Amino acid sequence: MAIISLDSRFFPEDLRQRAHEYRKAAHKALQDLQQGKGEAAHWGGWYDYPKRVGFSLVRDIQTFKDKLSTHYDLVLVIGIGGSYLGTRAVADALNHTYLGLVDPKVSGNRPMLVYAGHTLTENHLIELIDLLERKQPIVNVISKSGTTTEPSIAFRVVRNYMEKRFGSEEARRRIVVTTDKNSGALRKMSTEHKYESFIVPDDIGGRYSVLTSVGLVPLALAGINIEKLMEGADAEFSSLDKADPEHPALRYAALRQAAMDVGKSVDVMVFSDPKLFHFVEWWKQLFGESQGKDGKGMFPAGLSSTTDLHSLGQFEQEGARTMIETFLNFQSTRSTFGHDVERQLKIPHAADNSDQLGYLEGRLVDEVNQTAMLGTKVAHYDGQVPCLEIRAGALNEFTLGQLFAFFETSCAVGGALLGVNPFDQPGVEAYKKNLFALLGKPGTEDLGAALRKRIVETGRG
Amino acid sequence: MAIISLDSRFFPEDLRQRAHEYRKAAHKALQDLQQGKGEAAHWGGWYDYPKRVGFSLVRDIQTFKDKLSTHYDLVLVIGIGGSYLGTRAVADALNHTYLGLVDPKVSGNRPMLVYAGHTLTENHLIELIDLLERKQPIVNVISKSGTTTEPSIAFRVVRNYMEKRFGSEEARRRIVVTTDKNSGALRKMSTEHKYESFIVPDDIGGRYSVLTSVGLVPLALAGINIEKLMEGADAEFSSLDKADPEHPALRYAALRQAAMDVGKSVDVMVFSDPKLFHFVEWWKQLFGESQGKDGKGMFPAGLSSTTDLHSLGQFEQEGARTMIETFLNFQSTRSTFGHDVERQLKIPHAADNSDQLGYLEGRLVDEVNQTAMLGTKVAHYDGQVPCLEIRAGALNEFTLGQLFAFFETSCAVGGALLGVNPFDQPGVEAYKKNLFALLGKPGTEDLGAALRKRIVETGRG
Repeated sequence: MAIISLDSRFFPEDLRQRAHEYRKAAHKALQDLQQGKGEAAHWGGWYDYPKRVGFSLVRDIQTFKDKLSTHYDLVLVIGIGGSYLGTRAVADALNHTYLGLVDPKVSGNRPMLVYAGHTLTENHLIELIDLLERKQPIVNVISKSGTTTEPSIAFRVVRNYMEKRFGSEEARRRIVVTTDKNSGALRKMSTEHKYESFIVPDDIGGRYSVLTSVGLVPLALAGINIEKLMEGADAEFSSLDKADPEHPALRYAALRQAAMDVGKSVDVMVFSDPKLFHFVEWWKQLFGESQGKDGKGMFPAGLSSTTDLHSLGQFEQEGARTMIETFLNFQSTRSTFGHDVERQLKIPHAADNSDQLGYLEGRLVDEVNQTAMLGTKVAHYDGQVPCLEIRAGALNEFTLGQLFAFFETSCAVGGALLGVNPFDQPGVEAYKKNLFALLGKPGTEDLGAALRKRIVETGRG
Repeated sequence: MAIISLDSRFFPEDLRQRAHEYRKAAHKALQDLQQGKGEAAHWGGWYDYPKRVGFSLVRDIQTFKDKLSTHYDLVLVIGIGGSYLGTRAVADALNHTYLGLVDPKVSGNRPMLVYAGHTLTENHLIELIDLLERKQPIVNVISKSGTTTEPSIAFRVVRNYMEKRFGSEEARRRIVVTTDKNSGALRKMSTEHKYESFIVPDDIGGRYSVLTSVGLVPLALAGINIEKLMEGADAEFSSLDKADPEHPALRYAALRQAAMDVGKSVDVMVFSDPKLFHFVEWWKQLFGESQGKDGKGMFPAGLSSTTDLHSLGQFEQEGARTMIETFLNFQSTRSTFGHDVERQLKIPHAADNSDQLGYLEGRLVDEVNQTAMLGTKVAHYDGQVPCLEIRAGALNEFTLGQLFAFFETSCAVGGALLGVNPFDQPGVEAYKKNLFALLGKPGTEDLGAALRKRIVETGRG
């Protein structure tokens, strides 16, 4: 099976040379990761996880799913940040665009997957309950501590709803908890209420956790093939076992670092199917949170091709030259939803040719889409944007697993090149501290008073 | 009715002083716009459009809608960039999150609104047809020229489907065209097939066109109150009639320019309800396409609060200090969908308090959300990010109309300060040229050969 490859031909020569000089450092960083040295000693659990834990966990989850004694047609994931983004990345990429609205046979008879606890928007919870009213939901709440504000509020509301609707015994069967092994609010609740539970590992941070129970449990419930996901990740990690310094994951880290060295400040991931939106959101968290610290890092952004070429294309082509772009190129993004036959769509004939598409008649729409990616890459390169292309096979569980391993490894290695700890997120606490204080959480009264004073007193501008 | 206001207290003093010096230039640029001078002579049609054309157009569209002789439960908008983003901004902001999946009474009995022609993804069209199969669709295709690749391909496929399913006479009743007054492929087709049609004005570019037929027709079909939208825009434009240089729209332009003067390269719009995602996409196109040229402009990005604080929050707080942030703050984002009563959700009581939310019991979820916005603004300001806050009333048609007028005016004025033409988009053509050549469009053979040579020959990196 081909590994993820990286094409840097449209990255400027001087930056490639600069990246070349990071070869040894990148290789050393990979070895530290592989040997669990440095920060990886505490936070490197995701590396090579498939072989060590993953395949066995997949079997446990499949057994759990087979034994489920309740019928459901909707999976509600309650989680924020790394607790839901990986799940959503996979589910959105592989599910029917209009799941829940089309003939279930067409969409592979999969349950809907919806999300809560990733926002504090009141509407969102009210309207979620409207949806649950028409469905038979199962709930997976995911939080290491169990006290993160967003998922905690959502879980209170949803648990309340479930118990009222189903009674406590059936609600219990419809709630699955993924949390810390021993401690925290959710672990306590799960023991008291006898919820089925899974573990968030201690040595894997949220944004690196998609291939643990965090992502695997909801994806399995939603009918995604988690074994193939694990196989893809395993294949990619295995390709790193005897990695030479030219391995694409190392080159990607080095090329990004070279771009930062010369002052590039925006890192744009271009994707060719709207279904990849949340995969790129996952990528944005991974790189933004891992490398955006100590005043460093590139601002990560997504660009949906060709949709956003008609909104941000002008900026990409001729605006401030602050960006690099990476084109995420799958061999195909067609879905089969478990059907044998891949559906295709060719551009139909039209009697008149007033739209001037005649020369495209009979050709696959995807061919036009792929060609647009290629044409855009060259156009932006000519507009002085350094461009990379990451190539994967057909979009499916296996290739997504590969990409998770590829990007996680490259991101951790890149942290070493940048001189930051790619596993912590000290800056995420600042807004929470202010939030608690402004809400009057017991023990935060002094900060609350100080903040209110500042908010009122700061002079008008 | 209060106009849109701007709070710059958490924008650094030196930048505010610098902005202050742009007062006269901003005021002069507004006057040029109002008097139709300079580029506005050809492209200023959107300014004060409600009074000149808008209200009369609203009545025409309402009459058209009242006379419709066909039943529909789904509106399909075919368009890309400015031809759909404004529509989607309003519809997503004001519709039920799960429209089409919940009890129709709960979501105000509105038809679903879906989109095509904004992507070349083959899957997306195939799966759209799956959805149409279960619905009674009406189609609005929107393109000034009628030959833009994305909507042209989608319209070919959809027209083909509609004619096969409904027969040509009923298909004709279910297709509405919005295009150039006299010329172009869609105008020709619309005359030949006797489609109902509306006009894309000559003096209004795509990204400024949401309040013309481009946005109003599909929004009216989808059950949105377009008169209130127009009233909001009118109120905002009217507030500019005797604008002093301290008008918020002018200050917003000047403050952004001051940030660019000192090298800020990323412009982040923070929003507090996932339903505002596409409003911010509209804003991204407006500013990105208007100001991203001649090597200038800030990269526009959206940040969903608090969702993205758990992914990009780390970068915002401690990453490279390249950003400014604007907090888009509505008095409330509750929806009523035509019902009299606003639904509310308070944080429920829980017997145990293991999630430590006890101090929030009985409080509205929205209060927590609004407080998070405030706490985040202060935290990021303390992290050296210049922060603005734009305040609007309750989220509805009126306030969205106000915001469209506010941002369009401010963006055009800002173009003058930056020294660019805010109405053209020369860079959007580059990728299209390459696309046509690589696809072998007649007349592009030489460029096609040259591109293929480059793509093959450029050395491997």
